[in-house]
Amino acid sequence: MTGARERLDDKRRTVEGALDAGLAGEDSVLLRAMRHAVLSGGKRFRPLLLLCSAERFDGGRGLELSFACGIELIHNYSLVHDDLPAMDDDDLRRGRPSVHKAFGESVAILAGDALLTLAFEVMAGAACPDGLAARKAEAMVLIARAAGLRGMLGGQALDIGFRPGNETEAAYEELTARKTGALIAAAAEAGAVLGGAPEGDRARFAAFGKTIGLAFQLRDDLDDAGQEDARAEFRPNEAAFLGAARSRAKLAGLLESALTGLEASGLLSEELRALALSLEPPG
Amino acid sequence: MTGARERLDDKRRTVEGALDAGLAGEDSVLLRAMRHAVLSGGKRFRPLLLLCSAERFDGGRGLELSFACGIELIHNYSLVHDDLPAMDDDDLRRGRPSVHKAFGESVAILAGDALLTLAFEVMAGAACPDGLAARKAEAMVLIARAAGLRGMLGGQALDIGFRPGNETEAAYEELTARKTGALIAAAAEAGAVLGGAPEGDRARFAAFGKTIGLAFQLRDDLDDAGQEDARAEFRPNEAAFLGAARSRAKLAGLLESALTGLEASGLLSEELRALALSLEPPG
Repeated sequence: MTGARERLDDKRRTVEGALDAGLAGEDSVLLRAMRHAVLSGGKRFRPLLLLCSAERFDGGRGLELSFACGIELIHNYSLVHDDLPAMDDDDLRRGRPSVHKAFGESVAILAGDALLTLAFEVMAGAACPDGLAARKAEAMVLIARAAGLRGMLGGQALDIGFRPGNETEAAYEELTARKTGALIAAAAEAGAVLGGAPEGDRARFAAFGKTIGLAFQLRDDLDDAGQEDARAEFRPNEAAFLGAARSRAKLAGLLESALTGLEASGLLSEELRALALSLEPPG
Repeated sequence: MTGARERLDDKRRTVEGALDAGLAGEDSVLLRAMRHAVLSGGKRFRPLLLLCSAERFDGGRGLELSFACGIELIHNYSLVHDDLPAMDDDDLRRGRPSVHKAFGESVAILAGDALLTLAFEVMAGAACPDGLAARKAEAMVLIARAAGLRGMLGGQALDIGFRPGNETEAAYEELTARKTGALIAAAAEAGAVLGGAPEGDRARFAAFGKTIGLAFQLRDDLDDAGQEDARAEFRPNEAAFLGAARSRAKLAGLLESALTGLEASGLLSEELRALALSLEPPG
């Protein structure tokens, strides 16, 4: 397991380097805002999931790093827009001022837009080995769908209408499946597609990613609830709704089910296991 | 010339139909906001320019309609975000309430994001005839670059810092070249790329699009200045800076130069001429 964690750290450094290089260029307030949003020590969960999934097949033959960066840029743009005053109105992100706090609201809107645009520039611009154009286009469509109206953005729109009082576990699960789960599921599935997985294995990675996405959000909720006192405003979430004990049990069950599913098909790697288990609650 | 205008109208109807079909699906507030933004009678200048440019070569063999829609979706998302209170704070767009006026600010942010995401889903998902994958990827990169940090969004960030007092004709031209010109130039160039234009012709279409983009903004400025009394707040623009007479002369010169450039290489069509001349000021 130590070796797996080290290999994940190596991959994380590779992604960090590629993101930094992709965000180079003539200095401007817009570029500074984009760099502030992206190069601030995220976990890089989605790109790692994509890379580890691709690795279970032929790896993606060079396409995978561009797509890992693309999906992380999409995740980061969504945080910038999510933090805006008209949305969650968060002043802090990863312990630093959110982009609109540091650069103003209009620059934050444009920086989010520019990160989303860059994500697709990077994916479309990835050098494509002979015969891999279909994989490349398919992975891009899959990620765009997961990020859009029927995935993440649809989930965020649902979230706006979500008010304490109409909460049920099922409603939280539907919300999470779209708001957080869709892009994480797309990371696993796109990795499999880029690696050239056969249809059945691709579906297994999609299912794995979907379950991991629910676990990811539950872990995030638990962390939020733990910091409740430190926050200006605590927003209701599934972990608070279920209570800590049930949430922990549910999270453990999700991880178990995700890992068992892949293992049964011989598709699990030590790195995928370590990545999933990084979602276990501390203590 | 009548025939050319009719053929442009045919193309416009085709684009409208494809946009409408691309924005179908399960009813939701987010989808309604996206439809409100796009299906409201725009001129469809960029998609027409792309289609007419592709037609000077092999047409794009089916890719061109998806890219025409993609570039129009990008243009429309940019208007939604441009109108936001933190940006230009416009209550009206094409004579109707802007998206944030009709649906609220948070839905407008998400709707803009979803249109931008859909643009790339539509382009990446276009059925690709054998051997055309490189054209397709190249056109997508070209459009993403024109829409991003170094193009349209960079121009909008410049615009935020643009204050009356530091105006020069050159500063306006630089601003326009990025804010408006880049995406219009990309429409012409992407059309040529999709049609399989040889390198030199591709550059000629890029230059044509660039000049047409400057003309487009000048015409837009002139229209704005004409409606000055009707607007809550008049923002400085190049036409107001130059004055009506000089602006009209400059606009005529830009159109003349753009058309002459293409005609000299035998690349002009009656439709491209009619499209360019639609930018002539009335009267």
